[in-house]
Amino acid sequence: MKATGIVVEYNPLHNGHVYHAQQAKSKTAADIVIAVMSGNFLQRGEPAFVDKWTRTKMALASGVDIVFELPYRFATGNAPVFAQGAIELLDAAGCSAFCFGSEDGTIEPFQNSLQLIDRHAQEYETAVKKAVSEGVSYPMALNQAYKTILAEQPSLSVADLSMPNNILGFHYMEAARSIGSSMKAMTIKRMGAGYHDDSLDRQQIASATGIRKSFFGSETLDEVSDFIPPVTKQLLYEWQTERAVFGNWESFYPFLRFVILRDGPSRLRAIADVSEGIENLIFRAAQSHDSFQSFMDAVKSKRYTWTRIQRMLTHILTGFTKTRRAEMEKPTYLRLLGMTNEGRAYLNVRKKELSLPLISKVASFSDPSLDMDITASDIYALALGDGSSAAKTGLDYHTSPIMEDHFSFKSLK
Amino acid sequence: MKATGIVVEYNPLHNGHVYHAQQAKSKTAADIVIAVMSGNFLQRGEPAFVDKWTRTKMALASGVDIVFELPYRFATGNAPVFAQGAIELLDAAGCSAFCFGSEDGTIEPFQNSLQLIDRHAQEYETAVKKAVSEGVSYPMALNQAYKTILAEQPSLSVADLSMPNNILGFHYMEAARSIGSSMKAMTIKRMGAGYHDDSLDRQQIASATGIRKSFFGSETLDEVSDFIPPVTKQLLYEWQTERAVFGNWESFYPFLRFVILRDGPSRLRAIADVSEGIENLIFRAAQSHDSFQSFMDAVKSKRYTWTRIQRMLTHILTGFTKTRRAEMEKPTYLRLLGMTNEGRAYLNVRKKELSLPLISKVASFSDPSLDMDITASDIYALALGDGSSAAKTGLDYHTSPIMEDHFSFKSLK
Repeated sequence: MKATGIVVEYNPLHNGHVYHAQQAKSKTAADIVIAVMSGNFLQRGEPAFVDKWTRTKMALASGVDIVFELPYRFATGNAPVFAQGAIELLDAAGCSAFCFGSEDGTIEPFQNSLQLIDRHAQEYETAVKKAVSEGVSYPMALNQAYKTILAEQPSLSVADLSMPNNILGFHYMEAARSIGSSMKAMTIKRMGAGYHDDSLDRQQIASATGIRKSFFGSETLDEVSDFIPPVTKQLLYEWQTERAVFGNWESFYPFLRFVILRDGPSRLRAIADVSEGIENLIFRAAQSHDSFQSFMDAVKSKRYTWTRIQRMLTHILTGFTKTRRAEMEKPTYLRLLGMTNEGRAYLNVRKKELSLPLISKVASFSDPSLDMDITASDIYALALGDGSSAAKTGLDYHTSPIMEDHFSFKSLK
Repeated sequence: MKATGIVVEYNPLHNGHVYHAQQAKSKTAADIVIAVMSGNFLQRGEPAFVDKWTRTKMALASGVDIVFELPYRFATGNAPVFAQGAIELLDAAGCSAFCFGSEDGTIEPFQNSLQLIDRHAQEYETAVKKAVSEGVSYPMALNQAYKTILAEQPSLSVADLSMPNNILGFHYMEAARSIGSSMKAMTIKRMGAGYHDDSLDRQQIASATGIRKSFFGSETLDEVSDFIPPVTKQLLYEWQTERAVFGNWESFYPFLRFVILRDGPSRLRAIADVSEGIENLIFRAAQSHDSFQSFMDAVKSKRYTWTRIQRMLTHILTGFTKTRRAEMEKPTYLRLLGMTNEGRAYLNVRKKELSLPLISKVASFSDPSLDMDITASDIYALALGDGSSAAKTGLDYHTSPIMEDHFSFKSLK
């Protein structure tokens, strides 16, 4: 059996994601699609809209056969770290190809970019460091350095590394090369949730961000239903009915503020990504702001991207210290969140060839990175809950992988 | 002007406390009464029923002229630490006497106890250590050791050190002696809230504990009003109307649980009073219990008193580490929470003779212990609040000492 890997967040899963999974499978003539998916905290340093099990159900109902969790350490890392973790897991899972969404859907420009940067490695690195030292944000510095070396070969067709999806794609390819993976790199044109809908006035909800925003605005579930598969709609409806609130920083802010005030600048300094005195700014802002929005307005600056600050805040919330991070340099397990029958057939055949241990019960495995994933789940549940079922912790111990047989998404497909 | 000192928690202030303040003043022929009062966390390791400013108002309306805050480090310490902090502050404030409540209201048995233990210092210490090493709780060990040396002088009239008020009284005297204080030790018979009410069926609300319990039960404010002065009733009513909830562990538990799960056993170990592996028990209990009551049922054991566990939990909640505690061995300031006109007159005259700096604005003074008091206030406000005014932090910066002129308790007296 042949598997193709994809890297996803599904926050939440929309029609563009269904298209991506289908294309990844058909274009590579694969038997199954394996997704490596972020847990409850995401790459932009945000709590997920709905938890990882709900998003796993969305995935399994939409063309994905196996979902592995991208551990917290990688899921909340910058683009190179995120990509490294995801690619190592797809490789360990035995995928023969991986397929990412990009702005124009052709792989050659990425290959050219990779070779170009490779040939100018030192020049590139120096330019990045120089820009960062001048106060330029890291993603911006990468892009500037890239443009510098590009200028020497203006005729070459290269990837536009100012686009977020392209940046990730580039790092996936770089990561695959760095571990000598035999996986074939593929890309397909990225589609928004509303790719089959041309009306301009609907563009604002034609992305995962737009769909989330619509829930915090006046729109109802019905108004976004053209952009999401029925199973996403059903699961969002159930979540809303049960918990009343979706994952978002504003709801998590009382807990974030609590730990900022409790720990104080000296202990905030020990948290991953917190550096250069920003702990004092964060502490002072928490003292005087009682909403996340006004807190962020006080913390943000030219020196740090919004995303970088949010990642710090995620780490503060979850207690992810520099010491903890140092214990988890590489992925050490394949944590199964769910699978279809086809996915199970694949794992039955390939189980022994996996290059990392397969975990379907967390209690049977001991690992610092897994402990962090469990903590992150508990923190997410507690911060979201108000004494209701959402405030149950230890979900990772009590939740079995989602199995097609036990989950009634067939009818919703 | 002559001042007599008392040590109080006023959780909340009831008629027995009014009696104590009045007697302390009249029996010592003092001009004013100075109270050293715990902040928002108390000696039994509990959040205060209402905050320190509200309790200061109660105090100033009930016979106390000056309220100084007992810093967090001492307010949440065991009896010797609590007593040491309180007595050093009363001494620094220039009191010529201090007066504590005891079971039978005579000072000689305490003096005898002190001398007796003094003469048998080594024997006493050895017996305490032995009992603790055998798994006996600290207060129980003290009492056992005390009985051992008592057995040699059965005819001597000594204090019964199995009673909480007597234990504190004993430690006040011990502390006063240890710093060579010239303050005269006094005691009066302790009175419950219902000391003027003989009906047995009202005994259950005739103490501060009973009054608090009645608020969490079916009783209303009116039903306890025979036991509290009108000003206490008025302030409790205002608090209830504004915040809907009184300080209690059950309300604080979501935040406590959050930080226990976030920090994990290895970081819990760094917290003051957490020792000997109890961090693992605390962590596991937080994983599986979603109410404070069931959490405590899982944590409590013969080895630790309920109070000792609650103190650990208070320190976990506020992030009070062993390292932080080591920075504050002795009281370093007199933090003014409020005063009457008589209190102000006293301070005007005696200001220069105070042996510790007088703080009426926290922003003007920098001290690790004061930082901890400020943190504790913020933690209390956040844990109690739900986005309402109670969730405001930085109250210590924004709240001036309560002044008789600005607070309308006169009419309520």
